[in-house]
Amino acid sequence: MLLAGHRANQKGIPVVLDPVGVGATRLRTDSAQRLLRELSITAVRGNAAEMATLAGFRAKIIGVEAVDTCGNASEVATAFARRHNCVAAVTGPIDVVTGSKRLLQVTNGDAIMRTVTGTGCMATAVIASYMAVERDSTLAAAAALATYGLAGEIAAEHAMGPGTFQTHLFDTLAGLTEDEVRGGARIQENNP
Amino acid sequence: MLLAGHRANQKGIPVVLDPVGVGATRLRTDSAQRLLRELSITAVRGNAAEMATLAGFRAKIIGVEAVDTCGNASEVATAFARRHNCVAAVTGPIDVVTGSKRLLQVTNGDAIMRTVTGTGCMATAVIASYMAVERDSTLAAAAALATYGLAGEIAAEHAMGPGTFQTHLFDTLAGLTEDEVRGGARIQENNP
Amino acid sequence: MLLAGHRANQKGIPVVLDPVGVGATRLRTDSAQRLLRELSITAVRGNAAEMATLAGFRAKIIGVEAVDTCGNASEVATAFARRHNCVAAVTGPIDVVTGSKRLLQVTNGDAIMRTVTGTGCMATAVIASYMAVERDSTLAAAAALATYGLAGEIAAEHAMGPGTFQTHLFDTLAGLTEDEVRGGARIQENNP
Repeated sequence: MLLAGHRANQKGIPVVLDPVGVGATRLRTDSAQRLLRELSITAVRGNAAEMATLAGFRAKIIGVEAVDTCGNASEVATAFARRHNCVAAVTGPIDVVTGSKRLLQVTNGDAIMRTVTGTGCMATAVIASYMAVERDSTLAAAAALATYGLAGEIAAEHAMGPGTFQTHLFDTLAGLTEDEVRGGARIQENNP
Repeated sequence: MLLAGHRANQKGIPVVLDPVGVGATRLRTDSAQRLLRELSITAVRGNAAEMATLAGFRAKIIGVEAVDTCGNASEVATAFARRHNCVAAVTGPIDVVTGSKRLLQVTNGDAIMRTVTGTGCMATAVIASYMAVERDSTLAAAAALATYGLAGEIAAEHAMGPGTFQTHLFDTLAGLTEDEVRGGARIQENNP
Repeated sequence: MLLAGHRANQKGIPVVLDPVGVGATRLRTDSAQRLLRELSITAVRGNAAEMATLAGFRAKIIGVEAVDTCGNASEVATAFARRHNCVAAVTGPIDVVTGSKRLLQVTNGDAIMRTVTGTGCMATAVIASYMAVERDSTLAAAAALATYGLAGEIAAEHAMGPGTFQTHLFDTLAGLTEDEVRGGARIQENNP
């Protein structure tokens, strides 16, 4: 990860970090902190508990699955972005994305997404693909999460459970058109 | 595995072992035996060949995929439970579960389950989730295998092959109600 | 891999190598070359870039995803088979298989196969299963790729995207009959 990250930094390729399971084990927390310290990371995507741990909100949040109120997710994202000088994307019922200036909230998505392993990792991968073509990283991350959440909403309509949902999520994400994204994305600016 | 197991033992959390591929390589056999020796294992779930290897039925069974007759599976489960002092769940056409006293047979399931990789591992995971809420480990394991097998039967009705079967298995397992389980579970006591 | 390969060689079991990502990292290239040097490999299946790297076509091809023209794939396969003295299967829009004598081209398959991770690895596994029952390794590899590509064509008809395609690919491959394969396989001999 360090070799790949340094090389990406040298070449000006954006780096997106997904700190999976941070707060759950020391190895995971230390590894994420080391990556944040030694590399120039463009954006980090995690759930509220993971992001809060890395933002320094330790006492309250370690071990908790998610922070419920939107206010908290915004606080976590803002503190994270300031501390690590990068774009912070806190995903949950409402996704919050912020960099040095704007704070964007994304309300796309469906609760069934939480029943499928890997949906968080996929969100990070979609953010990385958007950053490959859009230089405003805050906007790229928010647009990626809106697109991904919209695909989740459409797939959920055809799903009879987590199995068919996953299958339809791949189909929908692969087939989504620009018009569908423009018509269905729900991003709002909510600066502190 | 040892660290996680010791910690679970300290906290009184049930430990379920799935000795994947035991008998196929020395590393796998030795690792499973070490876990059984050093930890307090609540239950072990394996196919007849894996369980027979660990129960000491070496000569006849190594390298064999499954033991066919129900009699043999019962012998293997009984010998395993006695030798390792835990609940033994031998899965196959008929699942056999036994602890220190009762021997339960579960006849739920469908032959298509064997065509999908990971169905054995999933069975073990369902057993672990049942043991988290039911203290009678023999009953928990049998109920888990009945539920899982029933989900397999229902999914098989809608499947056109192993691909759609897997998708429907996730849907069915996620959506199964208590009434469906009570109506469809086939568990019988068959004490030696 | 070396231990397994040596043991297979001793027992006369065919060995099929899939040099995943060769040319992308030094470790991968070196590992594949070591396996080719130390083992007796029956067949190698890769895309044009992977196979060209191992055939010695270095300058032009490293880093490229695929070689487009059929002529090039044939050249790569022929050079590979000669250099490593084994059957070479170069897969792409048209698959090319050659051993010491015949060069076979397989035109089964569908473009959607490239959108699903692991379809190349599955092709290699199907080749291995065909080699278990057919001693003419060139024919076995070509028949495997035709069968697999035909399954892809049929699955693609029912697919709404990469998710449903993958599900149907498993179903179709599991259910394909000998008559369907004989009727749908498109293999032609095209000796140099």
